[in-house]
Amino acid sequence: MIDHPSYRVEPWAVTEEQLKLDVLAQSESVFALSNGHIGLRGNLDEGEPFGLPGTYLGAFYETRPLPYAEAGYGYPEDGQTVLNVTNGKLIRLLVDDEQFDVRYGELEHHVRTLDLRAGTLERVVRWQSPSGRRVEVRSTRLVSFSQRSAAAIRYEVRALDRPVRVVVQSELVANEPMPPQSKDPRAAAALAVPLVAEHHVIHDLRAILVHVTRRSGLRMAAGMDHVVDAGEAAVTQAESEDDLARVTIAADLEPGGDALRLDKLLAYCWSSQRSLPSLRAQADATLAAARKSGWDGLAGDQRAYLDAFWERGDVELDGDTELQQAVRFALFHTLQSGERAERRAIAAKGLTGPGYDGHTFWDTESFVLPVLTYTSPDAAADALRWRHSTLDLARERAHQLRLRGAVFPWRTIRGQECSAYWPAGTAAFHVNADIAVAAVRYVQATGDDEFDGTVGLELLVRTARLWRSLGHHDADGTFHIDGVTGPDEYTAVVDDNVYTNLMAARNLRAAADCCMRHVDEARALGVNVEEVASWRDAGGAMVVPYDEMVGVTSQSQDFTRKAPWDFESTSPDQYPLLLHFPYFELYRSQVVKQADLVLALHVCGDQFSDEQKARDFAFYERITVRDSSLSACTQAVMAAETGHMELAYDYFGEAALMDLDDLEHNTRDGLHIASLAGTWIAAVQGFGGLRDHDRTLRFAPRLPPRLSRLAFRLAYRGRRLRVEVRDAEASYELLAGDELELVHHGEPVTVTPDQPERRPVPPMPARPEPRQPKGRAPLRRRPPPT
Amino acid sequence: MIDHPSYRVEPWAVTEEQLKLDVLAQSESVFALSNGHIGLRGNLDEGEPFGLPGTYLGAFYETRPLPYAEAGYGYPEDGQTVLNVTNGKLIRLLVDDEQFDVRYGELEHHVRTLDLRAGTLERVVRWQSPSGRRVEVRSTRLVSFSQRSAAAIRYEVRALDRPVRVVVQSELVANEPMPPQSKDPRAAAALAVPLVAEHHVIHDLRAILVHVTRRSGLRMAAGMDHVVDAGEAAVTQAESEDDLARVTIAADLEPGGDALRLDKLLAYCWSSQRSLPSLRAQADATLAAARKSGWDGLAGDQRAYLDAFWERGDVELDGDTELQQAVRFALFHTLQSGERAERRAIAAKGLTGPGYDGHTFWDTESFVLPVLTYTSPDAAADALRWRHSTLDLARERAHQLRLRGAVFPWRTIRGQECSAYWPAGTAAFHVNADIAVAAVRYVQATGDDEFDGTVGLELLVRTARLWRSLGHHDADGTFHIDGVTGPDEYTAVVDDNVYTNLMAARNLRAAADCCMRHVDEARALGVNVEEVASWRDAGGAMVVPYDEMVGVTSQSQDFTRKAPWDFESTSPDQYPLLLHFPYFELYRSQVVKQADLVLALHVCGDQFSDEQKARDFAFYERITVRDSSLSACTQAVMAAETGHMELAYDYFGEAALMDLDDLEHNTRDGLHIASLAGTWIAAVQGFGGLRDHDRTLRFAPRLPPRLSRLAFRLAYRGRRLRVEVRDAEASYELLAGDELELVHHGEPVTVTPDQPERRPVPPMPARPEPRQPKGRAPLRRRPPPT
Repeated sequence: MIDHPSYRVEPWAVTEEQLKLDVLAQSESVFALSNGHIGLRGNLDEGEPFGLPGTYLGAFYETRPLPYAEAGYGYPEDGQTVLNVTNGKLIRLLVDDEQFDVRYGELEHHVRTLDLRAGTLERVVRWQSPSGRRVEVRSTRLVSFSQRSAAAIRYEVRALDRPVRVVVQSELVANEPMPPQSKDPRAAAALAVPLVAEHHVIHDLRAILVHVTRRSGLRMAAGMDHVVDAGEAAVTQAESEDDLARVTIAADLEPGGDALRLDKLLAYCWSSQRSLPSLRAQADATLAAARKSGWDGLAGDQRAYLDAFWERGDVELDGDTELQQAVRFALFHTLQSGERAERRAIAAKGLTGPGYDGHTFWDTESFVLPVLTYTSPDAAADALRWRHSTLDLARERAHQLRLRGAVFPWRTIRGQECSAYWPAGTAAFHVNADIAVAAVRYVQATGDDEFDGTVGLELLVRTARLWRSLGHHDADGTFHIDGVTGPDEYTAVVDDNVYTNLMAARNLRAAADCCMRHVDEARALGVNVEEVASWRDAGGAMVVPYDEMVGVTSQSQDFTRKAPWDFESTSPDQYPLLLHFPYFELYRSQVVKQADLVLALHVCGDQFSDEQKARDFAFYERITVRDSSLSACTQAVMAAETGHMELAYDYFGEAALMDLDDLEHNTRDGLHIASLAGTWIAAVQGFGGLRDHDRTLRFAPRLPPRLSRLAFRLAYRGRRLRVEVRDAEASYELLAGDELELVHHGEPVTVTPDQPERRPVPPMPARPEPRQPKGRAPLRRRPPPT
Repeated sequence: MIDHPSYRVEPWAVTEEQLKLDVLAQSESVFALSNGHIGLRGNLDEGEPFGLPGTYLGAFYETRPLPYAEAGYGYPEDGQTVLNVTNGKLIRLLVDDEQFDVRYGELEHHVRTLDLRAGTLERVVRWQSPSGRRVEVRSTRLVSFSQRSAAAIRYEVRALDRPVRVVVQSELVANEPMPPQSKDPRAAAALAVPLVAEHHVIHDLRAILVHVTRRSGLRMAAGMDHVVDAGEAAVTQAESEDDLARVTIAADLEPGGDALRLDKLLAYCWSSQRSLPSLRAQADATLAAARKSGWDGLAGDQRAYLDAFWERGDVELDGDTELQQAVRFALFHTLQSGERAERRAIAAKGLTGPGYDGHTFWDTESFVLPVLTYTSPDAAADALRWRHSTLDLARERAHQLRLRGAVFPWRTIRGQECSAYWPAGTAAFHVNADIAVAAVRYVQATGDDEFDGTVGLELLVRTARLWRSLGHHDADGTFHIDGVTGPDEYTAVVDDNVYTNLMAARNLRAAADCCMRHVDEARALGVNVEEVASWRDAGGAMVVPYDEMVGVTSQSQDFTRKAPWDFESTSPDQYPLLLHFPYFELYRSQVVKQADLVLALHVCGDQFSDEQKARDFAFYERITVRDSSLSACTQAVMAAETGHMELAYDYFGEAALMDLDDLEHNTRDGLHIASLAGTWIAAVQGFGGLRDHDRTLRFAPRLPPRLSRLAFRLAYRGRRLRVEVRDAEASYELLAGDELELVHHGEPVTVTPDQPERRPVPPMPARPEPRQPKGRAPLRRRPPPT
């Protein structure tokens, strides 16, 4: 965990004022730059020391056999693991006879700043070598949003007191040595020397290395070019080998004189199909385009790109500067994870680290896409198009599992199921409804009819077919889905998980509706009236288990009959429980890892009365231990909806600070992108009360005591809407686009352009404060540092 | 599967009249010899061709890491695998210039006979070499019951038409090359070159090889000695190496002249603790003892040992000679698996093959021990003493799983849990009650008070503590055991499995009773009155789920609410289902792999009314697919009890012919010892109606139409009882021991010495014939070959 405060509190940046080597791996994740296609961990320019070196390409992976001591039918045979590819970040420095290394000599000043508006990572170092030479190094790094395959680094060295002779080595290094990975099952599996060299070439200061993976057969080209401004004294040399390309610049620097300045341009391209010459040419072309833009052009485009994003999606908070910073940090990384992923998977860790093997889960559709849908809808569409592009694999999987329609994988990079423990993998069929509902949400929020009739329709039809074949009618005519695992991974392979059932019902109804909108396209998929009717029937007859005695919705059949967990005897060091108790004990007890029924209260909230939600939320609060990062944001939303604003605020803080404070002790392996996205969800759906159960946008804004103002912007059907909430009043303003009907606390509101609508915030009935398991209440938000 | 008839039908032997190379591996299992300590597969003397070479020592294993693609708390890290140890069976033969090999030249005659009274495997071969030389080879092999560490082979070669020059090489070979093992998860994992040579020595014709395993650190000595009768022309030579010892005998044989005769004596010793000199000395001593007995002495003792066994436990059938043979074959192998195991595990395959990695499961206590208890009670006691000797490991496991008492492993060789898939492993907690109830049964059947107050008491107390901590009371005061897996492996991790609950209840009550009988010993284990009361309370409040609507006992909570399995669409080649359907589909459907509730009807039959048993049996017959060999015998018992005698007879036939006919296509990996034991269960508990729910021995004999007579013998509290059943009448005769009270069809009977009691068999109410899933009815027993 990072001791607080690690980063200076400021609204538009995250600044580390002093290098802390013990949490270097964490800061590398926090300072990771990505556009969804290229990801560079915040490793130091000179490569060492490192926590975990990391350069990733979206969906670039190696396969490895999945071992089973006892195999079973339908177990996936191959896993997929994200690779640390050719490292282009490296710029090594020799100062007189000393290698520049922060562990030696004297580090006088070391400040790194992630600039959320510039989209850059800046570093300023003043260092005295062991022999007393002083230099200043400044570097600024960006991964371009506008030029998807390009990244760039501006690197400057200055002599401080005395003249120094410096040598700068700018490198591409493939197959760099990696530290041993964690034994935690959730951390990535290590793969040694994964890249096979195919080609290396260097022309002047421009080098390309082409490699191919051993088993997955993916080919990648990494390229670099340089613009050097080093005065007359500079001497350059350039060379390449299989796993190394290097440009060397030697210069004599005078104190007060010119700096040695190097602009390093990087290009990364990969393909499973294209040839070596084709990929090499693409890398060269990418470098040519980047060189034409130059550093200033790339940096200018980057800022403009982000200005437009913040204009669409910024969230402002008054009253808690720490969370103001955290929510923007969260939005920035959510954008980075998906913005230019373009029909490749958005991983649970984005491209910030190797955690979870670089896999994508339901996180994407359930936590990341709700944010992107309202802030960068094209990126949301592309993520869904990626899922759609894997339908052939999902249909094969359904066939293998003796089911109809499509079964999307629980965890994957390319689309094949990679989950080796089926009770917490394949059995979590809800991922299919999560995908379908994300498509429905996207269409509702954008009105994208073309998408609706193609990608959306097929996703809905194939998943509806799955649910129809997965469930069955009981003798009394009710529809049941048995033997599945809901979001709560401490309760597996159960009957009638409420979240799964309600999401499946929505999936089934939405598929039926979509087929009515696109009759010909539906017919082309073999849909007929009988099939649509069977979906509506199953969706309408779906069971929601309820415990009449306790008066609460049962997370799944008989859940409330399970043995209570002995929270009193569970010590703080026994969390997360899954590392200290066997699954069988967790599965048979009333203990909840993460919001499950409570997530249903949120995303299927139209299926519950307000009173029921309040009772259910209070009940599940008592048994939810929040051993997953995918929980606090949902608990924030439902705490807010049921009127527990302080509690909501605490959960909001936890979601927001998950990575800045390394709350789960695994930020080193990459950021929790879904929890970061959940920060937006907590703010906008929690305090803003945004709900999109149907084609009407609903708000129920209400602030926690600590905030004096919350404002957020949404993209919605070609409009830009700004919502501002103060203690007693909310205002709705159209920044662009036509008149909009929305709902404020149940009352219809018509917002017309240039005419903000103000509405009072109604009072909330007081309810007793819910209780959490011993020791598992969220941290109370202390007064923020001033 | 072996095409029928593979073996000649005869009452006291199993004879293969012609060598069939395509089922060689199967016949090697069928012809395996063992005494529970040493196991020799029926490999040909000359070693090749082979199906699967196999020489095993009871509980001699190697460990190997268990791989997990996704690990979890409490998963065992190491597996244990039975090893193919130093092969002492090898006797190679050179005939003039040709290697004796049944695949070359002409095999004129090849007959092998497993003699169930002599306890030997005999082989007679007449063979013509490719160059026309004819010889007769006779070998007889035994693994001594009376000298536990010894085996012996008498080997004779004769010239037939013309003089021949023969060379016989008698060998010990360690680390012999093995064929690749099956990918079937149930077959054993192969381990290459597992033995590290420590010592080899040869004196005259006596050689010893000592090896140690790499990881498990077990040391073994294999020794051989020879008595040669080869006339004057014999020349011998002897040599030893790390992995080979060889004695060579060359002789010129005349047709009609003396045979070359070799008596090969074998000794096998192993230890985890003893030194090389100690083990070597033990092997030498074993050889000295065997040499003193000589072949004739060993063979004579063997026959006498078996005579005594058949005297105690023979089962006679009139009307079906094939099953008469099969039931004796089954009893013989059951005896072989456990007779001299002596405080080591009895494996599911005995020592007949490497299947299931050589592990022991609940099979031992639930199927093998009921037979041994009544036919060879000392062996049953030793098996339970072995379990008791692993209590330290079982208590550690309980601690690791956060439970009290002891948790015995689902599968193991030495005592550590080796199950890598917990839903069908550790979750099958019923193994603990199976062990406890086996101890209770042993004490009831023998009156062994010393055992009761020591081994029995501690097994009962530690397992009772497990159940008390594993279960919990509900609000209504009933006691529940949630999240466990019963015998039916197609239904896992369920609440209130009836078999588990009833066995646990018996375990709890028996523990309480035993503590009353042995107050001081119980106090020494920390038992007090409150604890005993809590066991009685939990045992008395145990829930048995019941479906009022259908009127049947529910195998587990909500079982009868599961989706029906579509048997009509399941094709014959989709069985066993676990190789063709994912677990999640099996688990959530009403499909039963093997008797589970029906096993409860049998072993806890005092907890159900007759009518309930009939209804339950009919209900579960319809959904039981019998994909396990541990099912037919139980179905036979309950079919007989509920009056379906033809059906019972079919199931009896299936259990009896499991291996002789290779019904499950995996006899190559070893025999199904529990199914063989189940043959006795089907006969004695099915048609004999033996029940031992309490301290009264109850019978309810009734014959199927095809049998005109059934007689069986039982050892019971120092008595020998013989029960004979004919169509309308049963008789009870005391062959030894004092007067005995028993129950015949509910009526008390007092049997006095030398005074057989005859009783009529009452009629049975006719009930409609139960139905099985499509294609899963047992084979109807055809008229036997005459």
